[in-house]
Formats: sequence, structure tokens, C-alpha cells
Amino acid sequence: MPVYQAPIEDTLFILHDVLNIEKYGKIPAFSEATPDLIKAVLEEGAKLCEEVLQPLNQVGDREGCTRLDDGNVTTPTGFKDAYKAFSEGGWGGLSVDEEHGGQGLPHFLAAIFNEFVVSANMSFGMYPGLTRGAMAAIIKHGTDEQKVTYLPKMVTGEWSGTMNLTEPHCGTDLGLLRTKAIPQEDSSYKISGTKIFISAGEHDLTDNIIHLVLARIEGAPEGMKGISLFIVPRNKIDADGVPGENNGVSCGSLEEKMGIHGNSTCVMNYDDATGFLIGAENKGMRAMFTMMNEARLGVGIQGLGIAEVAYQNAADYARDRLQGRALTGAKEPEKAADPIIVHPDVRRMLMNMKSFNEGARAFVAWTAINGDIAERSEDEAERQKADDLLALLTPVIKGVLTDTGFQTAVNAQQVYGGHGYIAEWGMEQFVRDARIAMIYEGANGVQALDLVGRKLAANGGRSLMAYFGELDALIGANKDDEKIGEIVAGLKKGRDDLEAATGWFMQNAMTNPDNAGAGSTDYMHLMGLVALGHMWVMMAKAAEDKLSEGGGNEEFLKNKLITARYFMERVMPETGAHLARISNGSETMMALDAEAF
Amino acid sequence: MPVYQAPIEDTLFILHDVLNIEKYGKIPAFSEATPDLIKAVLEEGAKLCEEVLQPLNQVGDREGCTRLDDGNVTTPTGFKDAYKAFSEGGWGGLSVDEEHGGQGLPHFLAAIFNEFVVSANMSFGMYPGLTRGAMAAIIKHGTDEQKVTYLPKMVTGEWSGTMNLTEPHCGTDLGLLRTKAIPQEDSSYKISGTKIFISAGEHDLTDNIIHLVLARIEGAPEGMKGISLFIVPRNKIDADGVPGENNGVSCGSLEEKMGIHGNSTCVMNYDDATGFLIGAENKGMRAMFTMMNEARLGVGIQGLGIAEVAYQNAADYARDRLQGRALTGAKEPEKAADPIIVHPDVRRMLMNMKSFNEGARAFVAWTAINGDIAERSEDEAERQKADDLLALLTPVIKGVLTDTGFQTAVNAQQVYGGHGYIAEWGMEQFVRDARIAMIYEGANGVQALDLVGRKLAANGGRSLMAYFGELDALIGANKDDEKIGEIVAGLKKGRDDLEAATGWFMQNAMTNPDNAGAGSTDYMHLMGLVALGHMWVMMAKAAEDKLSEGGGNEEFLKNKLITARYFMERVMPETGAHLARISNGSETMMALDAEAF
Repeated sequence: MPVYQAPIEDTLFILHDVLNIEKYGKIPAFSEATPDLIKAVLEEGAKLCEEVLQPLNQVGDREGCTRLDDGNVTTPTGFKDAYKAFSEGGWGGLSVDEEHGGQGLPHFLAAIFNEFVVSANMSFGMYPGLTRGAMAAIIKHGTDEQKVTYLPKMVTGEWSGTMNLTEPHCGTDLGLLRTKAIPQEDSSYKISGTKIFISAGEHDLTDNIIHLVLARIEGAPEGMKGISLFIVPRNKIDADGVPGENNGVSCGSLEEKMGIHGNSTCVMNYDDATGFLIGAENKGMRAMFTMMNEARLGVGIQGLGIAEVAYQNAADYARDRLQGRALTGAKEPEKAADPIIVHPDVRRMLMNMKSFNEGARAFVAWTAINGDIAERSEDEAERQKADDLLALLTPVIKGVLTDTGFQTAVNAQQVYGGHGYIAEWGMEQFVRDARIAMIYEGANGVQALDLVGRKLAANGGRSLMAYFGELDALIGANKDDEKIGEIVAGLKKGRDDLEAATGWFMQNAMTNPDNAGAGSTDYMHLMGLVALGHMWVMMAKAAEDKLSEGGGNEEFLKNKLITARYFMERVMPETGAHLARISNGSETMMALDAEAF
Repeated sequence: MPVYQAPIEDTLFILHDVLNIEKYGKIPAFSEATPDLIKAVLEEGAKLCEEVLQPLNQVGDREGCTRLDDGNVTTPTGFKDAYKAFSEGGWGGLSVDEEHGGQGLPHFLAAIFNEFVVSANMSFGMYPGLTRGAMAAIIKHGTDEQKVTYLPKMVTGEWSGTMNLTEPHCGTDLGLLRTKAIPQEDSSYKISGTKIFISAGEHDLTDNIIHLVLARIEGAPEGMKGISLFIVPRNKIDADGVPGENNGVSCGSLEEKMGIHGNSTCVMNYDDATGFLIGAENKGMRAMFTMMNEARLGVGIQGLGIAEVAYQNAADYARDRLQGRALTGAKEPEKAADPIIVHPDVRRMLMNMKSFNEGARAFVAWTAINGDIAERSEDEAERQKADDLLALLTPVIKGVLTDTGFQTAVNAQQVYGGHGYIAEWGMEQFVRDARIAMIYEGANGVQALDLVGRKLAANGGRSLMAYFGELDALIGANKDDEKIGEIVAGLKKGRDDLEAATGWFMQNAMTNPDNAGAGSTDYMHLMGLVALGHMWVMMAKAAEDKLSEGGGNEEFLKNKLITARYFMERVMPETGAHLARISNGSETMMALDAEAF
């Protein structure tokens, strides 16, 4: 059975030594997050994840969810108790403002805790995760009455939330959706239609489920411009806020899927269900994007979370499994064979995992902190810049961390040899679970197009310029450093490839937008490598500084420097291949007739 | 439900126009394989695969195999009838010599047919596939009596075969194995021990199962040098060749695994089972390698087979699914949306798949033909060279075709968006099934080490020199061709990177073998890209020649040229990244303590 230990030391290093969160003390939420409090929260969260959630991960996979004949859905053994522990610990409201019943801590802390939850039990984590997204939309777009009605119960976990976007004939292209909303005299709407792939759509963990549903108001314009967002509680709520009879909302069936069996993926039927408009009429896409951006960061974290737990187990296995001898001669001659961690190719896999995970952890924290600044800073310029960086890098977090997270899980499975393919060892579950993250909340190709087609050019390229500004300041300040200069040079090369790729788009995508589309996924991954490299330079610098000062865990810090060097030597060189592919444009790619495939 | 159509036109183009099999007419098996016969065999084989095997693929995945209380194992619904059809069609003995009851056709034809079988139903194909490997060992190492006893029934499919290598504590490092063989007075042995991961170890398709079992004769030397290979029939065979009582062979349990559910993966118990030595005492590893090399080519073909069927379905879906509009403006304005095949990023995935599949198909055929020549040519020099190329490229076929085949299945699943994650669409099964091919018959890291640590240096590098000779002759003859010169230049770049990587190993691996291990997987993939590029130049040349002559299917040939160009523009650039990683050596990779992971 897989094991898991939350990476607290690494997280604290990132927060305090690398990202220096103390410097944001003037932002309200941050001032409460003292180093002691952060440490206590992480340790308490780690305990819940390691002791309560992780032991249920394989159970959830094996049992899955069950739809009963009456349409109710039961979750796997133990999920109800775990959910109770999660809710009672206040984990659902960690970064929700106190006025709504939350703890008002910074979002970055919730993001970090989320990594632990995913590592321990991704399917479980999706239940509160979806609630978080729904709350974010209500907080941003709901009326005061809606906030009072829904948020307090959602923060405590008594009620959960969902996002209802996809229909059988439309996923990415929501303009095609058909679920309809008929206005009623009391200003509510009657919602009817079928939604598919609704995660946590029905389950037995909460008294009520608050569905956020995209639908088209009768007579609304066609396409994206005629879509509105509605709050549709599964059970009608009376004047005292108590859930009563069913509101015409039912789970038609559960999807049989590759993984995340512990989470219920539902076909949801809405049958004259009473819904309440949230945000403006026909502006549903805007409100929905609030959920989506929150969710995309969350899905990127899923890539990291699975990669981390898969890595930890692969490392354990590589230390334990005796097979063959080191190429340079027996390392443990007294044993029948050496542990496989002596083999360079096993090391290669482990170092790829380690350098990705630690880089991604820092990248998530850095991005989440920008989210906090964008929402909560009182300095307009600081807020603007953070918001620009957040917008630019959200698709990169989602696309790159899930692609590479999946690849990392596959590599971790590979370390196990044949045992990796066998269910009881748990590694193949990580691969199956990780796979969905590349698809939902906008398939990764859609993330790439969002990045290249929208984010690069937005506001005259302001986001990208801000990002290059960050990179160049860091590179400029450290490129001649005799200790980390070589590491900085690796980032510089990646940054230059990113600049060249951007320039190529500027020259070639205006005349033919397919040239942007053709290079979009390569560009997203190129930027992902630069973003991780950016983190590795910051981590190397922090480690070197701390070593010079003689403080901290010396071995930990030296290992950071080695891993930073590994990343530049072995991972970053991929940027050149991305640039070469991008620069070849779309002509050959688009040349075949559709029927020729 | 997925569909499948065997790629007959593409295969015939490869055999006749690209590889010119007619020129081998003086080799006995080839002279019988006239163009008409080849076409008839492929068409008949395609029919079996499309109509009988493919419809059972999802059934096999859903039902899996069942071990009954008495230890017998039942295969999924329909497998028995399909196996009967397969056997009665003579498909199990396609390339087995006529003296053993086979049809005596070239091995390349069996390899091609095998691709079709895997595409249709990989789990099913493993039953006769394992028999093929066992037959190969008996043909090469068995006594005349053993040949007469086993081969005729195995060729007809009445009996099947297996390979029993792995034990719970040893897979890659077979030197550790413990299954013991005690010599008996009648020159047989009593075999006792437990083997795991035995594909097709027990099932209800045949009257007997002929297990080839690695074991250690009492008193034999430790390690690899004390291992012998035994024939252990499940049921004892009487003097008339009729199977009787059980021979102390039983299936202890079936493994619960990620995929290939239609094939029974068994824990096999041998309890004083009567076994017969095959080959010399303590030379079991040599005899086993006969099976392994055959099997490694077969597993490489599994990578291609799954990639092909996954691609075909993704292409269909991309043509059918309406979602969004082309970046360059609506392509089918009369519809609610354009088919997603208009999107460059969907094209990118499809072109990656197509260029891999067609290149890999040619590579498999080319390698299999070398196998035929190595075995059957009467020209010593020709035989030697073919054997050298086969030895060099077998690990590349196995490692690269399964890694990239898996990646291709993942990409094909991605084209489906959310539906790709849902079982009923069948795409996630392809991913789960393809995953095992990277692991079994020697995990891909072991293939890479075989290539770099053994094959490169064997016979003073004769194999590699022969391979560069092939490449350079092709490049030299076509580099100035105005039609395909650019395509040739792509191969030249890859070839130069391969040469540089080889040179780096020569300079750095003698002093530190870890430098070879550290670069082995990158080197294997580098060579794989060159090998596929080699095929693409040959295919481009054949297409161009045929177009100039005005013969053939003009659209098909033009599409070949476009796909060749795509491969060079978009896939081949990866060689530079591989070279960069290789050239960074092992130092950083090996620097961390094992406990630091």
C-alpha cells in the first residue's frame, strides 16, 4: 500500500526562504499568517491527510461510488467520516473571508494544503474542491442575500457545491449549450436540461448540494453571449435556511471512468428545477470564469499532488528493491544485489520527478501568492501586476503541471517494474487518477490556446512584459554569481528561447492565426520550463544565501543546489526543441485533407 | 465503441515500394511470398481481426479472466470461439517452417499480422503470441524428440505456450531466482517454485499448456550461470502424445492489474512438476534469450498496434465532433460548429500519431525482414549484417515503440476530451493496455542499457557501423535531390546527433560507466528517432519515385511526402535535446544520497 508524508520542510523553505512571504505583511490576510501559525496549519493539515485521507485512497478506487435505485449516491467506505473530520477541522474555509464564516487566511495556504489533500486522496479532495469553486463564484458575483443563504453552510461543509457546464454535445464550446431557464414571476427561473461529467454531482456527504448551472434564458442570444449562471440547490431551502423537498434535480447515472473512482461523476438531470440567477443575465461566462480560474489552479495542483505521492513511493521502492549490481561495481556486496537506486536510469527518473515536484511546488506557491496580492493588496500597481501574472500563468499551471504530473506518475510506476502494473501496489491508480487532470477544466490544448491566443496579447502584452521583467531582474542580479551562475545561465537560455518563440508568433501569427495554434502547446510547455527554471534559480539563490550564512539544514540546502543544477542540465534543454517546432509553423500540419487521417 | 480497419494499403506500400521485398526472392521463404499471396494473407488476416477479434476487445476488458475454485481459469465471453477461428485459420503457424507443421512464410508477414491482431485485441493476441515465443525456443534449442512432441500441437493451437521467468523477488535480475530442479533417474527433473506475472499461464483455450520455466538445478552455480530452461507441460503427455493428469502445475491466483484484463496474468505454482531440460544445463539464459528477442519485437509491435487503433478512432472523432470554430474563420458555417479537426492543436496530435505509426510500421517490417535474412539467407555476409542490425535495433523497437506507442494512445485519448476518460468510448482501455508494454519483457530502462552497455560495443561496434553505413548510403544518394532534399537534411541532423552522442560515450563511459547508464534512455530514443527518420526518407523516396513514374494512388503518395516533412519538422528536433542531456553526464544525477530522495 502506498505511503505519504506531506513535504512540510520543503514547503516552509519555499514560503520563508525563497518567496519571503514576510515581506507581504501589510496585506491583511498575510499579517495573520505568522510563521508559527503557518507551521501549525501545515502540520495539522498533514496529519489529517496522512492519517485520515490517505488510508482511504485505495478503498475509494476499489469501491467507487454507487448510485442507488432511488437516484441517491453513496460514497466509498470511510468517506463520510473523513469528510466530517475535514469539515470539523475548518479546512473548507481556510482562506474564505471571516465575514463569510471562514478563517481569512491567505489563499496560498489553501493551495498548499490542497497539494497535501490531493497527494493523500485526490478523489476525496474533489468534494470540498468543487465547493471552493462554487463559493468563489458566489462571493464574487452573488447578491448579499445569496451570500447569506449559501456561504455559511458551504464554508462549514454542511453543504457542498458543483459546477455544471458540460452537456453531451458541448464541452469546450459552451456556446452550444441547450439547458434552458424560464423566468418565473418571483424572479426565479425554471431550469431544465441534462449536464454530464458533473464531479461530486450527487453523494451522501452533505445535507444539500448547491449546483451552479450554466443555462440559456428563453429568448437569449445564441452562442456564448446568451449564457447565464444559476444557483440551483438540490433541495429547496425554506425561509429558515433548512433544506426540504427535492428541487427537480437528480443524478441520472454515474459515469464508468478510468480513475478518480472515489468521486461521483454524474449525469445530472434538471427538470423544472428552481434556479436563481447569479451575476447579470447573459453574463454567465464571466461568472463562470471566476470558478474556472480557481479550479484551473486547483487542477494544476492535482498534477503536482499526484506526482509528489507517486515520487515518494517510487523513491522508497528504489531504495528497497534489490536487483542487479551498480555499473561501477557492487555497492552493497553483502546483499544478494544492490538496491535499484544505484542505477543511473532509475536515478534519472527519480531526479526528473524530484526536480519537477519541488519546482512545481514553488511555482504553485508563487502563483497563489500573486492571487492573494491581486485580491487583497491595497497597492493598485502591485495588485495589477499580480493579476497580470496570475492571468498569464494560470493556463501554464493547469496545462504543464498536469501533463508533467501525469508523466511523473507514469515514471514512478515504471520504477516498480511489473509491480507497478498490479493494482495492490497502488501506482497504477496514481496514473489513472492523474490522467483526468489533463482533460477537465479545459483540456490542455485549450489552456495552450488561452495562453497564446488570449493571454499573450491581452492589454498590449502587459502580462508577458511583466513576466520577462521578473525573469530579467533575477537573471541580471545573479548571472555573475560564481556559485549559482551556471544555474542562472540555464534559465537565461530558456528565457531566450521563450523570447524567440514569442517573437516568431508576433511575426507570423497575425497573417495566419494557425501559426499560433500550431505552436501553442509547445509554447505553453516552453513557458512552463522557464517558470520552473525561474523557481529553481530562486531556490538555488535562497539555498546558497542560507548556506553562506551558516543557517538551516545544510544537507537539505546542498541537495537543493544539486537538484537545481540537474533541472538545468537535464530538463531545461527541451526548450530548444519546443522553439524549433514552433518555428516550423502550421503549413505542413494543416496540409492534409481531413479524410487523409 | 472503437472501430478498426487494418492498414493494408500502407503495409503493401511499405513492403513493395519502400522495402522492395521482391529483391530477396532467392531466400526460400520469400520466394513463396508472392505479391498476390501477401495481399491475400493480409486481407484474410484483416478480416479475422476486424470482424472476430476487435468486437471482443471491450468485452475482454470488462469481464477479465476468472479463476475458479479448482484453479482453472476461464477467459472472457467469446474468446474460445475466436481462438478456434484463429487456430483453424492457421494463423499460429504462419511463419513456422513447414517441417514443424507451419506455413513456412517469412517472419515479417507474421510481424505485420501481429500488428493487426494487437490493434484488434491485444489481450487476445497474447495467447498465441506467447505460444510463438515458446515455439521459437523449442525450434532453436529443443531435441528432435521435443520438437516432435510439442511443435505440431502448438502450431495448430491445440496447445499453447508460456514463458516463466519472474519470481516475487526477481524480475530483471534473474540470477536471483530460486525455482529449483532436481534431476531424476529418467533424465527428467522435478521442478518446484513460484513464478509471478505469467501471461496466459492458465486458461480454457487449449488442451494443454507448455510452460517454459527457468530454474536452478540442485547444486548449480549461483547467479546467471546456474540457470537452466525446462519444458514443463501442465498436463503430463503419454506415449501417444495425449495430455493426461495434471503435472503439479497450478495457477495460485490471478493478478489484479491496470489493463490487458482479457489475458490471464497468473501466479504459477510448480510442485514437483516433471520438467525436461531444453538446451544445455546451466545455459538457460541463452535459450531464454531466443524467446526474449522474439518477444521483444512482439512487444514493440504492441506499442505500434495500440497506437494505430487509438489513432484511427481519434481521427474519426476529430472529424465528427463539432466544437468551436477554426482560427481562420468558420469552415463549415452551415453547422453549429466546425469539426475539431480544423484546430491546429488537434492536427498536431493526429500528425504526431500518424507520422509515428507509419514510420514504426516500416521500421517493424524492415527489422523483421532483417530477422528473416539473418535466419534464412544463404549468403553468410548478408546473414551476418542482418543479424547485427537485428541485435542492435531490437531494444530500440521494444523501448521506443512502446514508450511512444503509449504516448500516442494518451494523445488519442486526449482528442476525445472528457469522453476519452469514460470507459464506454474505449480510449482509456488503449492507454491502460499499452502501459504494460513499457514494462514487460525487460522494462524500457533495461532495453536502453542493453543497447548502450552491450549492443553498441559488441564485436567492436560492428552493428553500429553497419547501421551508419545504411544511413549514410541513403543520405548520400538523396541529399541533393531537389524534391526530398529537405527531408533528407532532417535525417542528416538526427544522424549527426546520434554520432555525437556515440562519440561522447566513447570518450566518457570507459572511465565512468555511469556516464553510459545516465544517457542510455536518451540514447535509445535518439536512435529511435533516427530509425523512424530513416524509414521516412525511404518512404519519401519511394513516394516521390512512384509519383514521377505516374503510378499508384497519387493522393496517398503526396500525403506520404507531407507526413515525412512533418516528421522532420516536428518530431526529429528532439534529437538535439537528447544529445544535450546525454552530454551532461552522470555527475549531478548520482550526487544525492539515496536517503535524500
